[in-house]
Amino acid sequence: MKIAILGGGSLGLLFSYYLSLKHDVNLYTRTQEQSDLINDQGLHMIKAGKDETARKVVAAPIYAWQGLEELTIVAVKQYQLADLMSDIKAKTSGSILFLQNGYGHIQLLSELTPAAIYIGSVEHGAVRASGNTVFHNGEGVTRAAVFNGDADLLSHLSFSLASEFPIKLESDYQEMLIKKLVVNSVINPLTATLQVKNGELIRNPSYREIFSQLFEECALVLELNNKDEYFQNLKAVCEKTADNHSSMYKDLENGRKTEIDAILGYLLELSARKNINAPLIHNYYHCIKGKEHEREGA
Amino acid sequence: MKIAILGGGSLGLLFSYYLSLKHDVNLYTRTQEQSDLINDQGLHMIKAGKDETARKVVAAPIYAWQGLEELTIVAVKQYQLADLMSDIKAKTSGSILFLQNGYGHIQLLSELTPAAIYIGSVEHGAVRASGNTVFHNGEGVTRAAVFNGDADLLSHLSFSLASEFPIKLESDYQEMLIKKLVVNSVINPLTATLQVKNGELIRNPSYREIFSQLFEECALVLELNNKDEYFQNLKAVCEKTADNHSSMYKDLENGRKTEIDAILGYLLELSARKNINAPLIHNYYHCIKGKEHEREGA
Repeated sequence: MKIAILGGGSLGLLFSYYLSLKHDVNLYTRTQEQSDLINDQGLHMIKAGKDETARKVVAAPIYAWQGLEELTIVAVKQYQLADLMSDIKAKTSGSILFLQNGYGHIQLLSELTPAAIYIGSVEHGAVRASGNTVFHNGEGVTRAAVFNGDADLLSHLSFSLASEFPIKLESDYQEMLIKKLVVNSVINPLTATLQVKNGELIRNPSYREIFSQLFEECALVLELNNKDEYFQNLKAVCEKTADNHSSMYKDLENGRKTEIDAILGYLLELSARKNINAPLIHNYYHCIKGKEHEREGA
Repeated sequence: MKIAILGGGSLGLLFSYYLSLKHDVNLYTRTQEQSDLINDQGLHMIKAGKDETARKVVAAPIYAWQGLEELTIVAVKQYQLADLMSDIKAKTSGSILFLQNGYGHIQLLSELTPAAIYIGSVEHGAVRASGNTVFHNGEGVTRAAVFNGDADLLSHLSFSLASEFPIKLESDYQEMLIKKLVVNSVINPLTATLQVKNGELIRNPSYREIFSQLFEECALVLELNNKDEYFQNLKAVCEKTADNHSSMYKDLENGRKTEIDAILGYLLELSARKNINAPLIHNYYHCIKGKEHEREGA
């Protein structure tokens, strides 16, 4: 099928490469320079040191997007989504898959009336090395669930890519997003503040103490019923990615804006709305905001 | 008068230099090497680029101390004090001045029966460059108060050094120590965790938010009546030392043990004893403990 991918960041490039193995992909980037680069020199995906070039990806600047593809995958960061929503609302005729972290974007989706809306949660490790090159460092899965409409297109996509790039269908988008949100809320701010790899949060006895406390606060604010299941999942991700630096750690290191607003910012708002005291969420939200501020000033 | 100084760290060296301008100082160091170095090459104090050599300091290893001096100044870290207490109890015949940070050491003093016990709180910036060299980077005062006995010796000491190295007499040792404890509890762990200079805690709007929250928790645990006075003092110290790295920041940077147990460790115990919830004190205590653990493991 014809698939549009909005956003040429690490996820946009990663999805463009893998989906182009079986589909026609139009990749829409923020800048003309990036789409020229991809059209001239190809899109490269490097995995385990092996450089693969995508064949059927056509790139264009995002203002050229007309919403005619059967499926549009929105692969921009949550903080970039608001600017794009009026365009998405006006143009999309097919179905849409949203890949943002956090939960705050869900409230924007009720305005939309496409064929179907899907929600995705990506568990791959990917780093953009340049405008046309992405490293696929951590093999994982993409989880996806129906938000609105029927699941046919999503099932078809999942089936078509089963061996190359697994897309696992989930029944409950809320649970799926919240699970990821908990992982991101604990691992990202702690590793970025303490400047450690993910595994240190459970290996170092003092950091493990903080890790548990911050999780408890997230569980309280999110009113998790099956708390222990979420904690086991959080620990499992920490163990599996023990030697990695989290995306927030790397964002700060590279002077990029982080996703803190979509993650702890969302929980902070939620705690205020529910009138729940959340001192550690408040603290780590401001630790990361402060670090962003330092880098802006520098 | 004859004065003993126990401990050859930055404060021990600083006090030895200045007190030797008017008194006979015996400096007792942990190692024989350090006392040999001082006796061979003199004790150097460097201020504003000018290298001054002390004249009347005689150094010896601490096991040679017999407690015969009129005044003994205990200039070791709080975490080194417990090991020294039985010696201090058995040997001291004169008066004693304790210079430790924190508040936990106060409970050890009731065992002692010297002529008088004084409590000091040092507001100088000093860095030990080598076993016989100290930089006096930040000119301040030493505050001191009576814990037990009469004030005569302390007044005499203060008077003798008025122009070179001010010692300001305070009426209430508790208030004096708690004021310093609040400053150390907020500035030290935050700057060491966030890896910033002192001034950033009030300049950066996000860090200022954390700074206020941690202060509030300390005020709650310490049951401060005149909270605002302590907060104004805390901010004033932050402004005055804006371009400095805190001692805890430097301790971690140089792989040394920090004074976290004497500072937030004490508040954490106090909060448990009073059954007060103190999530940020708990958090920052474990941040610093975790960083110490990282360095031990490295």
